[in-house]
Amino acid sequence: MKTYLDCIPCFFNQALFAARIAVENEAIVKEVLDKVGRLISKIPMDSSPPETGMEVYRIVREVTGVKDPFRALKSESIRKAWHLYPSLEEMLKTAKDPLETAVKLAIAGNVIDFAANPDFQLEENIQEIMQKQLAINDYQVLVDKLGSAKQILYLADNAGETVFDRLLIDAIGRPVTYAVRENPIINDATEEDAIASGLDEISEIVSSGCDAPGTLLGQCSESFLNYFQAADIIISKGQGNCETLSNEKRPICYLLKVKSPVVARDLRVNEGAIVVKYSLSKDAL
Amino acid sequence: MKTYLDCIPCFFNQALFAARIAVENEAIVKEVLDKVGRLISKIPMDSSPPETGMEVYRIVREVTGVKDPFRALKSESIRKAWHLYPSLEEMLKTAKDPLETAVKLAIAGNVIDFAANPDFQLEENIQEIMQKQLAINDYQVLVDKLGSAKQILYLADNAGETVFDRLLIDAIGRPVTYAVRENPIINDATEEDAIASGLDEISEIVSSGCDAPGTLLGQCSESFLNYFQAADIIISKGQGNCETLSNEKRPICYLLKVKSPVVARDLRVNEGAIVVKYSLSKDAL
Repeated sequence: MKTYLDCIPCFFNQALFAARIAVENEAIVKEVLDKVGRLISKIPMDSSPPETGMEVYRIVREVTGVKDPFRALKSESIRKAWHLYPSLEEMLKTAKDPLETAVKLAIAGNVIDFAANPDFQLEENIQEIMQKQLAINDYQVLVDKLGSAKQILYLADNAGETVFDRLLIDAIGRPVTYAVRENPIINDATEEDAIASGLDEISEIVSSGCDAPGTLLGQCSESFLNYFQAADIIISKGQGNCETLSNEKRPICYLLKVKSPVVARDLRVNEGAIVVKYSLSKDAL
Repeated sequence: MKTYLDCIPCFFNQALFAARIAVENEAIVKEVLDKVGRLISKIPMDSSPPETGMEVYRIVREVTGVKDPFRALKSESIRKAWHLYPSLEEMLKTAKDPLETAVKLAIAGNVIDFAANPDFQLEENIQEIMQKQLAINDYQVLVDKLGSAKQILYLADNAGETVFDRLLIDAIGRPVTYAVRENPIINDATEEDAIASGLDEISEIVSSGCDAPGTLLGQCSESFLNYFQAADIIISKGQGNCETLSNEKRPICYLLKVKSPVVARDLRVNEGAIVVKYSLSKDAL
């Protein structure tokens, strides 16, 4: 997905939010916004929003001197998600179709997002999502692909959401490679977060090699690209992965909550919609 | 009121909205945002938001070549407001306290705002506001001040809202000087809009001499400043006038709907609140 002009005010909101988490000094926060201001004219509009997002958060890190402003929030999100874990496991035990419920729970976990949705209320938002209909429902395609898949790649999104991913991987009941970001970016999951969420117990954790809040293949490691090319099905979580991979001709199933009006327009759904979409690239269908 | 960092993403939203109304070419709209981006580091944070707003809209005009992008929307707003006029007059005829109802209607008209509230739904929003309690209610002070006032100055805000101002001035039933912007800025009312709203029939229309979406006294004409200094009561409509005058020690009664989280924080009310506040400067009380 390319960057739309509507993304630009949003980059400033994100920079403001992240910088204020990093430092209390508003003069330093202003310096962050000044630098993001000068970045605007350099944004290639055919790049994806996470590519610019990466630059925005790099500015936040450089100006504030804080390498991982979301560290504490990430740990808290994982803790909160673990707190809900027993009740979610119970929900799956009594579910008519546990895999389908686990897919919806994995999307529900995507409400944990300090970039697009900083005011989330975990429990309320999850209950709300579990009652929602999918705006795009390719669940049956996902079931079929999983049935015949030898290699399953799972692209993580946010820390905390990772605990919900654990439930889905458990429900899939097959070997899964779980890919996380190489370095801290916003509240996206790194290897450390995946381990804290118990993913090491049920999957092989790998790094994508990429620092963006998405999956920019040009920046990914060779070993990740091997997984990406060999996978029979790729489960992609969240907007960032979707924005960066939407033109790829690979068997990708996107699980996400749509939080941005721009992504909503691109997917032709309403803001707030929950989506199970098999491959955005028509050629790959 | 000073500029808060939270205002910065909002400046970009406003620039984007105005530029897209002016031109369809997204490359030109991008050029507007690039220039607003370079403006950020030059914003004095102790200036009021409308001072920067003036610069932002100047960039929109210069880059797009369109002097008054909101011309058609302003005319449409005035037409829509006139369409409601008979029913509003009827409402006042049956009101227990027609002046109080006219004050609330004048605030309700403030929903017409393409800067802070581009998605307004005129009739629905008005009904909603008429049912709301005032979050700050200095109505009785206003009544007292009007009772003894020899000179009444009324600071206009948006085109369309002007028609609602006509109802209030009619209910006041005394000579009123009605001040509008010197030149087109967003959808703020100019002399042309005031005349199209029939204000010339019931008040003396003057220009403030200022081009900002507010009242920057340093940029106002000498003749306006004479009215401002001599007035026994100044009725100030909308956020822009409030943001620029909040430190002035004059008997000002602010009528507004709070549309910005920053203004809400400053006034210690919730976003969406409706307010009748007599003078923000405590010394002037």
